[in-house]
Amino acid sequence: MSQRALRGNSLDAALAETHNVIGKRLERSEAIREQHAHGESWHKAGLPDAVAFVESKAEVAAIAAICNAHKVPLIAFGTGTSLEGHVTAVQGGITMDMSRMNRMIAINAEDCDAVVEPGVTRLQLNEAARHHGLMFTVDPGADASLGGMASTRASGTNAVRYGTMKENVLALEIVLSDGRIIRTGTRARKSAAGYDLTKLFVGAEGTLGVITELTLRLFGIPETVISAVCSFHTLENAINTVTQLIQFGVPIARVELLDDVQMDAVNRYSGLNYPAVPTLFFEFHGTKISAADHVSIAREVSRENSGSDFLWAEKEEERAKLWKARHTAYYAALALRPGSKGWSTDVCVPISRLAECILETKRDIIETGLLAPIVGHVGDGNFHLAHVLDPNDKALLEKTYAFNKRLVRRALDMGGTCTGEHGIGNGKIESLQAEAGASVDVMRDIKRVLDPNNIMNPGKIFLTNAGQKASAIDYAF
Amino acid sequence: MSQRALRGNSLDAALAETHNVIGKRLERSEAIREQHAHGESWHKAGLPDAVAFVESKAEVAAIAAICNAHKVPLIAFGTGTSLEGHVTAVQGGITMDMSRMNRMIAINAEDCDAVVEPGVTRLQLNEAARHHGLMFTVDPGADASLGGMASTRASGTNAVRYGTMKENVLALEIVLSDGRIIRTGTRARKSAAGYDLTKLFVGAEGTLGVITELTLRLFGIPETVISAVCSFHTLENAINTVTQLIQFGVPIARVELLDDVQMDAVNRYSGLNYPAVPTLFFEFHGTKISAADHVSIAREVSRENSGSDFLWAEKEEERAKLWKARHTAYYAALALRPGSKGWSTDVCVPISRLAECILETKRDIIETGLLAPIVGHVGDGNFHLAHVLDPNDKALLEKTYAFNKRLVRRALDMGGTCTGEHGIGNGKIESLQAEAGASVDVMRDIKRVLDPNNIMNPGKIFLTNAGQKASAIDYAF
Repeated sequence: MSQRALRGNSLDAALAETHNVIGKRLERSEAIREQHAHGESWHKAGLPDAVAFVESKAEVAAIAAICNAHKVPLIAFGTGTSLEGHVTAVQGGITMDMSRMNRMIAINAEDCDAVVEPGVTRLQLNEAARHHGLMFTVDPGADASLGGMASTRASGTNAVRYGTMKENVLALEIVLSDGRIIRTGTRARKSAAGYDLTKLFVGAEGTLGVITELTLRLFGIPETVISAVCSFHTLENAINTVTQLIQFGVPIARVELLDDVQMDAVNRYSGLNYPAVPTLFFEFHGTKISAADHVSIAREVSRENSGSDFLWAEKEEERAKLWKARHTAYYAALALRPGSKGWSTDVCVPISRLAECILETKRDIIETGLLAPIVGHVGDGNFHLAHVLDPNDKALLEKTYAFNKRLVRRALDMGGTCTGEHGIGNGKIESLQAEAGASVDVMRDIKRVLDPNNIMNPGKIFLTNAGQKASAIDYAF
Repeated sequence: MSQRALRGNSLDAALAETHNVIGKRLERSEAIREQHAHGESWHKAGLPDAVAFVESKAEVAAIAAICNAHKVPLIAFGTGTSLEGHVTAVQGGITMDMSRMNRMIAINAEDCDAVVEPGVTRLQLNEAARHHGLMFTVDPGADASLGGMASTRASGTNAVRYGTMKENVLALEIVLSDGRIIRTGTRARKSAAGYDLTKLFVGAEGTLGVITELTLRLFGIPETVISAVCSFHTLENAINTVTQLIQFGVPIARVELLDDVQMDAVNRYSGLNYPAVPTLFFEFHGTKISAADHVSIAREVSRENSGSDFLWAEKEEERAKLWKARHTAYYAALALRPGSKGWSTDVCVPISRLAECILETKRDIIETGLLAPIVGHVGDGNFHLAHVLDPNDKALLEKTYAFNKRLVRRALDMGGTCTGEHGIGNGKIESLQAEAGASVDVMRDIKRVLDPNNIMNPGKIFLTNAGQKASAIDYAF
């Protein structure tokens, strides 16, 4: 019996009542359901029974109350760029497309904050903020929706200086499973007023409620931005450089590590001729004087760690050129084997263990016979692998899955976490259990009390019953 | 009937069983119970029935299980420096003194983190970190325990640059109400693995569990620290200076505002001769070059806002002299009326509303006939009042209480919060209800599922039953 049938819910009644609320914006075509059945990952897609294109929090609240009454799953969907099966409708139900809730409600320049609806994307916000001399700094690569980024606790290249979504969401408006609407904070920059509900909903992957408004932190656009690239003989040297710079308190805005395989890939893909060795891509933000000072310290520390001379640039187009290798990393990796698919995964460890973790992982890649370039947000101890693979090679998929479990085990054994920024979704449920143990019971308790009918994005982060076994993995490829 | 009698619990059995666990370290003397009945505030003390001096998490877990079985309140106590009645035993029970759990478990210099027991104080941690070239930056003034600081989401002068306890607690070990022990995170610098339980327990004021271990973030001690003082004709000018510096992205490490009344007080108290006008106390951290650059920008922006010339200092003893006015602010305020007591309160608003909020508050102070100097963590929009009052003047206490309610209302109406850093305790329960509304129901739900017998520091943050009326305020003075 399917999980869906097990729910024994009243889907037809829920659909009829939802239709009464939003009319033709409740879509049931196969094509639209398929579009909303997956993110950008290897997980098997589970189709929702319908997609609701909502336009207001009142509609979200009404539909939540309907789904709750009929015990029908409700899944919020942003841009579909998540990587661990977060939006897959594993138990069917209604997927709520938030993209039409994209009003920019306010940009408060003096307070360096913005109030937006969840469908606004990060580039849209940045475009609006730019006119006030401000920027929104969280950059996970994709032009994701801000609601989705909050829900997955998104991060990215700027996190080492400006924080992740955890640090950049000041307050949320949330529709709870029964349709109640709450606000989790104010526009005050800090507060000691009660439980931090904002941080509870950030990263909850839509399992506790639906975000209908966000108050976000902005930063002043720096006077000067300097990019730099530096090659190293060994991974240890590259990572030691970063560790030392952080200890010195040099506020690096971005620092990305590409390994030898990844550098080779970008050289081929973009016609560049960097040495195919571990390479750091830096970005420094500040005043003219302070940014130059930080570059000179970084150059000195790199040199002490046998780094190459710095290639560096200050003008926007030159910086773009310099960072091109980083920005095209994923496509360059895929191009190593034409016709391949990418399977992306990440872990995060204390930075003191990063070199060791990456080196062991590289050994494992070679021994297992995989092709998986590494890119690291090295200032945070976070690194990514892009498995480049033939989607029809089932044995390879199984090997990759097993490899990823070893990767997580290795990170946990080093005091790290099973995911630095991709999240749990339904792809890393076992990994979270391995990492968090009894804490998962507390998460489950919180879920149960806030969503007693388990309608909010069910089957994600943890299994609802502690005794339940994870289902076998199906590959989307 | 007293709240305590209403619990209908088995106190004697709980005390006997606790005695079996820790023997003579369960103290019942009046003197020790009184010491543990209050923080440093105006709230009436509620004496616990006994004080348990615990020495290990196993003891904490055993005592929690005992209290839970017998429905006896359990209150964790650090150094007793909180300001809103957080540790008052309003329903009696066992207060657990955490001060003997003060092991420094690890300082991981490469990772810029420390693992400590909750009884370690912030100065103890700083002393240990200093030998590694590192510092712990959260500074609420008092040398509070780190467990207490996490529980109250403490903050202070450095928050504008380095964050509050929210940003500086990486992970916690928690004993839950039934004695289970969980860990809420790892030493990884960031994670997207499940609900952020760390942030749920930070600021929960001991109502969800007892902290038995903390992983904390450290920062490198900056190469250069420069302090500066600048006077302004008006509050608006002072505050505009700070707003502009933050928008420019100048990473000010501290920026404190003292109003005219407070400056007059410190002049008298410390024999200084600052102009008795709104004054900013700055601190800049960085490399020699970047710190000097930031000072010069701050000086320029101050001048544009009609600020005085900068008094500034770089050597440690000179910096201490310069900041003396700020450090003695509270005692200087009390000395304005010998024999007075201090009643401290705080709110936090968006920085764009800070000048307006402080000015309205000053008008209200004058109209109400109060003596209440103002000190602001102005970079965060957070400010404090120290009511200097005669503890025997009941009419004045009532007036002060009513004034504080107006202050909170004013902050909320400006999009702010009822407390930036002091917390709710039992002093601001009505304020939180006014601020958070339906969100308090969600907090109550979480409390109920994690602490079904309501033993963990009951009567704090919110009333357990939504319908319950707050009891009339009794003053400790």
